[in-house]
Amino acid sequence: MPGNSFGTHLRITTFGESHGPGLGVVLDGVPAGLQLDMDLVAADLARRRPGQSALTTRRDEADTPEVLSGVFEGRTTGMPLTMLVRNQDADPRAYAPTAHLYRPSHAEYAYDQRYGLHDWRGGGRASARETVSRVAAGAVARQLIPGVEIVAWTASVGDLAAEVDPATLTRAAVDAHPTRCPDVAAAPAMEALIREVRADGDTIGGVVRAVARNVPAGLGEPVFDKLDAELAKAMLSLPAAKGFEIGSGFSGTRLRGSQHNDAFEVRDGRVRTRTNHAGGVLGGISTGEDIHLAVAFKPVATIFRPQDTVDVHGQPATIQPRGRHDPCVVPRAVPLVEAMLALVLADHALRLRSARL
Amino acid sequence: MPGNSFGTHLRITTFGESHGPGLGVVLDGVPAGLQLDMDLVAADLARRRPGQSALTTRRDEADTPEVLSGVFEGRTTGMPLTMLVRNQDADPRAYAPTAHLYRPSHAEYAYDQRYGLHDWRGGGRASARETVSRVAAGAVARQLIPGVEIVAWTASVGDLAAEVDPATLTRAAVDAHPTRCPDVAAAPAMEALIREVRADGDTIGGVVRAVARNVPAGLGEPVFDKLDAELAKAMLSLPAAKGFEIGSGFSGTRLRGSQHNDAFEVRDGRVRTRTNHAGGVLGGISTGEDIHLAVAFKPVATIFRPQDTVDVHGQPATIQPRGRHDPCVVPRAVPLVEAMLALVLADHALRLRSARL
Amino acid sequence: MPGNSFGTHLRITTFGESHGPGLGVVLDGVPAGLQLDMDLVAADLARRRPGQSALTTRRDEADTPEVLSGVFEGRTTGMPLTMLVRNQDADPRAYAPTAHLYRPSHAEYAYDQRYGLHDWRGGGRASARETVSRVAAGAVARQLIPGVEIVAWTASVGDLAAEVDPATLTRAAVDAHPTRCPDVAAAPAMEALIREVRADGDTIGGVVRAVARNVPAGLGEPVFDKLDAELAKAMLSLPAAKGFEIGSGFSGTRLRGSQHNDAFEVRDGRVRTRTNHAGGVLGGISTGEDIHLAVAFKPVATIFRPQDTVDVHGQPATIQPRGRHDPCVVPRAVPLVEAMLALVLADHALRLRSARL
Amino acid sequence: MPGNSFGTHLRITTFGESHGPGLGVVLDGVPAGLQLDMDLVAADLARRRPGQSALTTRRDEADTPEVLSGVFEGRTTGMPLTMLVRNQDADPRAYAPTAHLYRPSHAEYAYDQRYGLHDWRGGGRASARETVSRVAAGAVARQLIPGVEIVAWTASVGDLAAEVDPATLTRAAVDAHPTRCPDVAAAPAMEALIREVRADGDTIGGVVRAVARNVPAGLGEPVFDKLDAELAKAMLSLPAAKGFEIGSGFSGTRLRGSQHNDAFEVRDGRVRTRTNHAGGVLGGISTGEDIHLAVAFKPVATIFRPQDTVDVHGQPATIQPRGRHDPCVVPRAVPLVEAMLALVLADHALRLRSARL
Repeated sequence: MPGNSFGTHLRITTFGESHGPGLGVVLDGVPAGLQLDMDLVAADLARRRPGQSALTTRRDEADTPEVLSGVFEGRTTGMPLTMLVRNQDADPRAYAPTAHLYRPSHAEYAYDQRYGLHDWRGGGRASARETVSRVAAGAVARQLIPGVEIVAWTASVGDLAAEVDPATLTRAAVDAHPTRCPDVAAAPAMEALIREVRADGDTIGGVVRAVARNVPAGLGEPVFDKLDAELAKAMLSLPAAKGFEIGSGFSGTRLRGSQHNDAFEVRDGRVRTRTNHAGGVLGGISTGEDIHLAVAFKPVATIFRPQDTVDVHGQPATIQPRGRHDPCVVPRAVPLVEAMLALVLADHALRLRSARL
Repeated sequence: MPGNSFGTHLRITTFGESHGPGLGVVLDGVPAGLQLDMDLVAADLARRRPGQSALTTRRDEADTPEVLSGVFEGRTTGMPLTMLVRNQDADPRAYAPTAHLYRPSHAEYAYDQRYGLHDWRGGGRASARETVSRVAAGAVARQLIPGVEIVAWTASVGDLAAEVDPATLTRAAVDAHPTRCPDVAAAPAMEALIREVRADGDTIGGVVRAVARNVPAGLGEPVFDKLDAELAKAMLSLPAAKGFEIGSGFSGTRLRGSQHNDAFEVRDGRVRTRTNHAGGVLGGISTGEDIHLAVAFKPVATIFRPQDTVDVHGQPATIQPRGRHDPCVVPRAVPLVEAMLALVLADHALRLRSARL
Repeated sequence: MPGNSFGTHLRITTFGESHGPGLGVVLDGVPAGLQLDMDLVAADLARRRPGQSALTTRRDEADTPEVLSGVFEGRTTGMPLTMLVRNQDADPRAYAPTAHLYRPSHAEYAYDQRYGLHDWRGGGRASARETVSRVAAGAVARQLIPGVEIVAWTASVGDLAAEVDPATLTRAAVDAHPTRCPDVAAAPAMEALIREVRADGDTIGGVVRAVARNVPAGLGEPVFDKLDAELAKAMLSLPAAKGFEIGSGFSGTRLRGSQHNDAFEVRDGRVRTRTNHAGGVLGGISTGEDIHLAVAFKPVATIFRPQDTVDVHGQPATIQPRGRHDPCVVPRAVPLVEAMLALVLADHALRLRSARL
Repeated sequence: MPGNSFGTHLRITTFGESHGPGLGVVLDGVPAGLQLDMDLVAADLARRRPGQSALTTRRDEADTPEVLSGVFEGRTTGMPLTMLVRNQDADPRAYAPTAHLYRPSHAEYAYDQRYGLHDWRGGGRASARETVSRVAAGAVARQLIPGVEIVAWTASVGDLAAEVDPATLTRAAVDAHPTRCPDVAAAPAMEALIREVRADGDTIGGVVRAVARNVPAGLGEPVFDKLDAELAKAMLSLPAAKGFEIGSGFSGTRLRGSQHNDAFEVRDGRVRTRTNHAGGVLGGISTGEDIHLAVAFKPVATIFRPQDTVDVHGQPATIQPRGRHDPCVVPRAVPLVEAMLALVLADHALRLRSARL
């Protein structure tokens, strides 16, 4: 089975390259009868759009989705729902001079090893532009789980970390600052750092955290399709992602069981846990507590400095990349994490329907 | 698609419960013609076997696999290869007194929410005993990629961390100490810590790291089935896993691109990277550099202390678990991480065969 | 994805060879809460059992299934339900003398071309004995759709055809005669024909028909997973199957649209069709009318006569098979067709749960 | 898993409705490096195009495919290959007057039962227009198995049957007559019959046969994904298909084993079978002999005569359909059968790569 599909009951297949005709997604398994809100899709695409702030790439794309199938009189029909976003500001000329060079920490070398060729125009399919398909799909997925509140935010940039209360955080608070960091103390420092590394022709990494509130209990499948395992795959499939945590994550490994265990209690008339080190998932199945996760993003690989590399013939060379790139992927990764989280939850909400007689 | 299968070309389906008749695995997609080494399977099972040292649970299981299908005259036939391990020392009586209570940070509550019932005998299918199927399968997978060297080790227990050179580490060095920590300075301290928490009726978490050497370049599929995304899912599907890192992971988010980028160079007559912050994967595809990953394991949930909880009727209660459990899952998680790593690599080695015309 | 699994929401994986340790099946996706009736499983297995009548092979197998997983206190848990049937009367010695010869119209030559080797003991995995797994699984599937009545029967043997009213046919009427032909006029002639061909050391083909009554409307998915497309695959996957028809099948190609169209009308207070040339499926989705299908089975390939063939080295040879075989597969194919029909319907009954918001 | 994808290693996902923006297909798993011949795709689409002859519907569609992804500098890249065909002559107004009526033997009633709504514009996704996606995909699949010769033809229309030698038949001979019947004696009579039923406002069914020559041995997987089982599903998924045969099919059920068995012999320096009742497949795996299959197509359901039916509220009504339709689907089904055959063979050619160590 090839690798461009994700999900089982709600299954997306994405296609397209950074500098080809466009990007698209087929959603198969969308239940019939959803009054589709395309404004919400457009709004989500606008959040990941390049050129949205001074902190992002200057590539200018309207990213307007065309619905090619699956909707009739405004409602989903149960048929494949397809959306296409045309590329408008594609400019592969910037890549031609270095087409014969492997850009360090980019995918071309690995693609060549696998496929014997690669599309050198702006990373081709390995470009972060591929995620436009995911965000469009995620915006539909979100409409399938209307009660669930999904909010992601910039939790750190380099060494600068934010303090945030995920129980009450809103998307508006996240979007209030171009860094997408809702900690008003930390955000300006993060912005300054991003501007500084950009001025250096450099880039910087960071961490996105996300919360999902009002998640129904029972989502996730033993043994391999645990909810957290599927989330881990979803997040690591994002460009530049290098790590994933659910709940206490790596820091929880330092605790003793007596500290880490989440005692059950009755609260607000239902079974709750007193703490939530689990991050909302036990044995791979959601408990109804908030889902907490984190995703590590490495610094963007395109830096505007000369670097040692080799060419496609294996000869040493020096590369000084051109093109248009973000100095820090984290602010624009926020809607990507939300989209993948929505896709996993919507898929498992459908899978839950088959769990009992 | 239900959740008890993993892999696409090499596809395993596991079954069985902790205190049922036994555990098993069907491997579908094993190529024909492999001279199957069942001693290697037995050896790997012995490494995860309970009761193997003073640091592990006292449950005593021989864990001898019976081959039910797929082998003829010692070689694989291309048909499903099935192995069954009977449970011998199952003793559900220990669980009967607390069958009506939800054990904190265990899966029963979530299972009940999903399925409306659960097998309360030792965790049923949510038990770590389920991993016997994975280890048996991983031992077969390893034989399909004979050139690849996979070694995992205990990288930390609580706050105690090891210093290890993954380039030269051997499995023998890992197994030389019951903690499976190959750092001879750190291992005794870790052992002392595990003994101390056990004496307290408590447990402790830790981190397993793994390296895969001599991995062919080209493994992994864009976009969703990236090698690191599949590894993340594989690892997070393990019991008690809470985090995953590939390469630089979370620490890499603190770096600048100019520090993090892995320059290409020609070394030993072939294209290599000068550093390996990527952890052997670029754009989701292996580069031929060593694969480095880490998995976080929370402290074991079963502690031998009274804890607040609720019963299956939602009434407050106190539980003092009995049963036989590890004080720290990390030493026995080492072969689990290796097994999942082998399964992913072997699957993708087969998938690579379809990448080019 | 390897080929030993079937179904998507209710997914079976079968394993085992004719003369290996046994045959088995893992059912993944069985909803939790089914009070499993193992007597029904045993009864279905008895219907396909060899040695059940003078018309079948003399191999003697009790075919008693052992439940290895997925059931707790008599009910399904949502975990993989595994059943194992041990081989008892396996006698590969009969096959040893001809192990180096390709039996005409058997699978060994094709297996060798694909795998480079084959298990020559009684057909290995290509043996009809493999279907014991399907019948066990089908007997569970049937319990998931308790309102649906599935009855298959021997519709023809050679040139001898039966007249049957599928609207009222019972399984008891089918089982009243060892041919499983419920037409009391045709059955004795069929039996005489089967005895005659056996006396000749020969075999004969035939057709199995099946009806499913009280099928809910709405089962089946556009475009590729149409209910009839999935039934066609299910049936053609049976050993010796060479053809499939839904509804009017090949004979319907001779009609005009004005003759073939099934007019809608209101009958018994609901929408019905006046005729049922469709066989209960329109556009790949069940309408609530009875499902009618037919499956063609070729004559059994093992005949007890000398035949020209080649050996595994490609040299001409003569083979006179030994072993124990049915002279006509049709009576024992009746429960196989029922099992596959039940598996497809139960799978799609679960898939229906995701069709609407 | 939703139903709009087909294949495992070469996996297509189709989308689009008859009177929506267009039809499309994503091919995932196309190996990298294929010099894609889009003229061949256009030629295949022209063969299924409406309005191509006096025997087909008068809907006029250019059916020009746009490649949206997966091709770079003329070659496939291993990324999803997407093609989109815009609808041009869509005219849903013809359907508006009968939008509230269930057309007999059409899919709307079943769709309503499943989804609670349906796209009434010309059958929506249940329209035969959906097959434009399959033909485009099949034309790519054919290029992946360049040595294989696939030819389908009109084998019967109503009671009129053709005599054809599949060993030497060419596509040119098939296309020489608008009926796509290469039997020059039968073709004119078939044409006259089709004209006659159209003059009556009626339709007629028929049978398509196909041969695949130079098929490599070893294609197909035991047990469920047998080559013939996959072909059966592929063919029954076509609109209006009601039956499938491989090799001797239903007529073979009348034979004895001694007549039906295909003796192995050495011919032309390799192992061949003397006869080919098997139709090129033994035990579900190709033998290298020609593949022979047949597909039954019912008469087109749209007849231009008044018919009894019910409306969407369950009230009796009379319908006299309008719209543009073929009087006989068989001539245009010929390229559909070829496309599905090519897709199955190309998929299994890739799957074969994983069969051996």
